[in-house]
Amino acid sequence: MKRLEAIPLLVAGDVRPGDSLLELLMCALRRQRLRPRAGDIVVVKHKIVSKAEGRIAPLAAMQPDSKTRDWAKAWKHDARVAELAIANARRVVRMDRVLITETPHGFICANSGVDLSNVDGGASAVLLPEDPDASARRLHLAFRRRLRLHIPVIIADSFGRPWREGLTEAALGVAGLKPLRDYRGLRDPHGYELHATCEAVADELACIAGLVCGKLEGTPACLIRGYTYQRGNGSAKELIRPAERDLFR
Amino acid sequence: MKRLEAIPLLVAGDVRPGDSLLELLMCALRRQRLRPRAGDIVVVKHKIVSKAEGRIAPLAAMQPDSKTRDWAKAWKHDARVAELAIANARRVVRMDRVLITETPHGFICANSGVDLSNVDGGASAVLLPEDPDASARRLHLAFRRRLRLHIPVIIADSFGRPWREGLTEAALGVAGLKPLRDYRGLRDPHGYELHATCEAVADELACIAGLVCGKLEGTPACLIRGYTYQRGNGSAKELIRPAERDLFR
Repeated sequence: MKRLEAIPLLVAGDVRPGDSLLELLMCALRRQRLRPRAGDIVVVKHKIVSKAEGRIAPLAAMQPDSKTRDWAKAWKHDARVAELAIANARRVVRMDRVLITETPHGFICANSGVDLSNVDGGASAVLLPEDPDASARRLHLAFRRRLRLHIPVIIADSFGRPWREGLTEAALGVAGLKPLRDYRGLRDPHGYELHATCEAVADELACIAGLVCGKLEGTPACLIRGYTYQRGNGSAKELIRPAERDLFR
Repeated sequence: MKRLEAIPLLVAGDVRPGDSLLELLMCALRRQRLRPRAGDIVVVKHKIVSKAEGRIAPLAAMQPDSKTRDWAKAWKHDARVAELAIANARRVVRMDRVLITETPHGFICANSGVDLSNVDGGASAVLLPEDPDASARRLHLAFRRRLRLHIPVIIADSFGRPWREGLTEAALGVAGLKPLRDYRGLRDPHGYELHATCEAVADELACIAGLVCGKLEGTPACLIRGYTYQRGNGSAKELIRPAERDLFR
């Protein structure tokens, strides 16, 4: 049987605005003696993408209004983070125990994805990439130019889920593969036609990065080998449930 | 760097009530010349667990009431499936375009997890295992007796998500590992203390099974090697968000 492999990529040192993700990842691949092959997929945690793109905001510049300060005090949150999250939201979905927003991309997540970990010790926050699909596409095309290979790229962040505890990784940006695998219309070995089966493979691939990259290990990307993906232009927007199909609107 | 591997396990033929999952999986492992090692994890799709446990319901026996028949007609669903789903629910969460229920286990999913695919061509439905944690534990203990190894077991099914398109696998039953990895209180390389980071690793491991097992391939389980899990008794109940922390109640 074909096996799937996932290999964490070690990116040494800090990623800074202007750094080339291609060079950082090529360097990691060389050092780990990994030669990318046709069929490989690269998953990158969004944080190094955001850092390379300069999506970093110093918290000292934030001036939260009194409503946000009161909320933050009541729920023991950082008012500057909340202010930054609201400034980077299309709408606030919920603001009581937690701050859930809809980002300009359409993602629904805590604090608009604003994150203080693995940045500079708490003085600055990292925002989500402005256009994660475009970021994925740039890296995908850069791999093609450098390696003459079609390497799909997924940009991942960890999101909470309404009904379940704990975070799982979700695909924010996709290039080079179809994020959804549609089984509808296919028949099982008993001749039964599948109806409701459309699998979010880009999110499941992102979850592998959650497992092998960890949160603290300096391995903000991984190479996935042995998964037979469906080629496509792809866009993580396909993974966003449109309002009329959303289970809560 | 340590790599993660996932190997689909081929279970030939149909699983019938009373079949031993241990024997089926040991047979698959032998045929694929796989010798389980310390550190390995086994993920099993719930369907073969339910089948082995006889959790199969013939649809002809269902007598949907007029309200269910009307709803099914309006939304082009099978009224018998809806009736079975409602009979196997603790409460109906939503019943318009789709039927979302809370199962007796506390899972919130479509049709109480009632599923017609890969059964007998549409005459019967498979229900969720009655106690998936207990099913996982039985298999975990059976592996220990047979192999003298601690092999964590996860039982998985594919669930929809409120805000995102497509299904991803979720852990219904867990034995032998902690389903949540808690990073809270740990410090990143910059000295920043992580706050909100608790990762649903059992769901992410289940997602690997989604990728390598597929929906049609006769590979209803997989062996995952190279993931450093945290040992624990484990229970998939830890993954269910309690009502007071639920984002929608």
